[in-house]
Amino acid sequence: MERSAKPLLRALSGEAVWPPPLWLMRQAGRYLPEYRRVRAQAGDFIALCTTPDLAAEVTLQPIRRYGFDGAILFSDILMVPWALGQGLAYREGEGPMLPPLRSAEDVAALQPTRLPGAIAPILETVRRVRAGLAQDFPDCTLIGFAGAPFTVACYMVEGSGSRDFAATRTLALTQPEVFDRLMALLVDATVTYLSAQIDAGADAVMLFDTWAGILSPMQFRRFVIAPARAIIAALRARHPSVPVIGFPRLAGLLVGEYASTTGVAGIGLDTSMDLALAGAAVPSGIALQGNLDPLSLVAGGAALRQEAAGVLAGLRGRPAIFNLGHGIVPQTPPEHVGALVEQVRAT
Amino acid sequence: MERSAKPLLRALSGEAVWPPPLWLMRQAGRYLPEYRRVRAQAGDFIALCTTPDLAAEVTLQPIRRYGFDGAILFSDILMVPWALGQGLAYREGEGPMLPPLRSAEDVAALQPTRLPGAIAPILETVRRVRAGLAQDFPDCTLIGFAGAPFTVACYMVEGSGSRDFAATRTLALTQPEVFDRLMALLVDATVTYLSAQIDAGADAVMLFDTWAGILSPMQFRRFVIAPARAIIAALRARHPSVPVIGFPRLAGLLVGEYASTTGVAGIGLDTSMDLALAGAAVPSGIALQGNLDPLSLVAGGAALRQEAAGVLAGLRGRPAIFNLGHGIVPQTPPEHVGALVEQVRAT
Repeated sequence: MERSAKPLLRALSGEAVWPPPLWLMRQAGRYLPEYRRVRAQAGDFIALCTTPDLAAEVTLQPIRRYGFDGAILFSDILMVPWALGQGLAYREGEGPMLPPLRSAEDVAALQPTRLPGAIAPILETVRRVRAGLAQDFPDCTLIGFAGAPFTVACYMVEGSGSRDFAATRTLALTQPEVFDRLMALLVDATVTYLSAQIDAGADAVMLFDTWAGILSPMQFRRFVIAPARAIIAALRARHPSVPVIGFPRLAGLLVGEYASTTGVAGIGLDTSMDLALAGAAVPSGIALQGNLDPLSLVAGGAALRQEAAGVLAGLRGRPAIFNLGHGIVPQTPPEHVGALVEQVRAT
Repeated sequence: MERSAKPLLRALSGEAVWPPPLWLMRQAGRYLPEYRRVRAQAGDFIALCTTPDLAAEVTLQPIRRYGFDGAILFSDILMVPWALGQGLAYREGEGPMLPPLRSAEDVAALQPTRLPGAIAPILETVRRVRAGLAQDFPDCTLIGFAGAPFTVACYMVEGSGSRDFAATRTLALTQPEVFDRLMALLVDATVTYLSAQIDAGADAVMLFDTWAGILSPMQFRRFVIAPARAIIAALRARHPSVPVIGFPRLAGLLVGEYASTTGVAGIGLDTSMDLALAGAAVPSGIALQGNLDPLSLVAGGAALRQEAAGVLAGLRGRPAIFNLGHGIVPQTPPEHVGALVEQVRAT
């Protein structure tokens, strides 16, 4: 395998690159005026995700502005249910709405054969971003992504966001055969989807399990670790040199078990994680990615410098990628992001 | 110190009592028909919390029905802001509403001198529960409680519940002197409040830090660990033999540090905690309390038995208290609670 010049891929191959390569979750988003202009032009959010020239444009905007080491495909974790034919709508200020799945019939009505055609515009976005990076930012790593099966299932079953996804977890406990069928279908769809993103030009892929932390340890092993392991094994068989970053948000004490048993090359750490303790729990060849508090980016000034210095100290000396512990929030002043980039680069 | 016959106090003194003593967070609550009857009679929720004969009655209801080893005072973590003169209202289905605190002036307007008078009816409830237990359930431990300062501050600053308490965390980052003043005031109020509960007859007290998990490690040490340590030191000076249970929900990797540096005799573990890993992180003399998934109590049957068996296996061999990882939810069938009690007692 050729040694990559891209710093983020070097970190994911186990090299302690310093200063750490840097990107931020939701770096393409509403805090940027140039994003808001394209968003207004697109009409609705799903149109933005499925119009390749617009989605590629917003993917590249933060790279032009800040020179991040990673460009993450602009898309949404619910494009998989959308591609499987479950209705999806975004109402302004309310988040996603889907007709909830609650029975074996609801799961059987999903259309996996629809997926390859439906995701075609997203793959075209990947190709355009790839071409744009090759021309202007050859050292920038293109990151594809998908929601992990449990988190995607949470929205599919609940039909919307929720604080505790009680309907989803109750379905998993009371109708395990229905929930297992949905999870198996999502594992397959995720492999197809991520593999196609890699074929279209993604250098690495990330699996977002936003709601992993609401499960008991038994459920975490079954619904978070096992699907991640299955997906990564299937991807590795097809694309042995493409690294996967796993992000089991709020995994807490189970972060080490997730990191050492799923096959990830990098592990996303949420804001709550102490980096010294996480570093001790995660095998040393796996890159730590995280975990600045997104609200310190809103605050700026001394609070931002102090929190960022804490993260940098925690990442030093091992393969690592500087990131947030959760997505950028819309009220973030863009100049605070600039100050953070300077601080990380000057370290 | 006299050796207690109460199993829950024995566990909190470091004894590996087996089967483990048992109580459930929110064991007095809407899932019980006898609770709903008293609630309807009380009018609003605050009236229920501040009418001693009604609050004592609902505290004792689950003890009569299930014979739990612990009776927790029926009250609310927001009785402290209420007692400090911050307006508090519960609107049906919406949760608590308070006029948000956002400035030094807002914090200065709180009235700590109001607290001792305002909490008088709650202390009367404690005395009545104490008398009721002494007569009919002499082995049942009376547990007083308060919200921990960070979690209480979350509601006081935000003015309501929230998914991420962004306003609170932003205040802490951008106006640390205002937030520190509020936290110091809450530490003092919590000591006064818990100490008065002990004087009124509480055998043990618990500190609920529901939102501890949304903080960065630096913030967790400052806003969760340091206040807990200060409160416990002050309580121990006045009541050396009364144990404190800390519940830093979603503490994740920091659970060991919290347990070993705050002075707690027991540590509440949320549903996500692996008991083997938590047990390795927490000093062996400290009781583990937890951590069954409340939704498995909704599901019942095989799912409940399996999850409960997992918790029992994790608690075995050390001082421990069987509990949930979060409060009972209203849709829980009371007969599932009965089945759980049987399973724990038969272990």
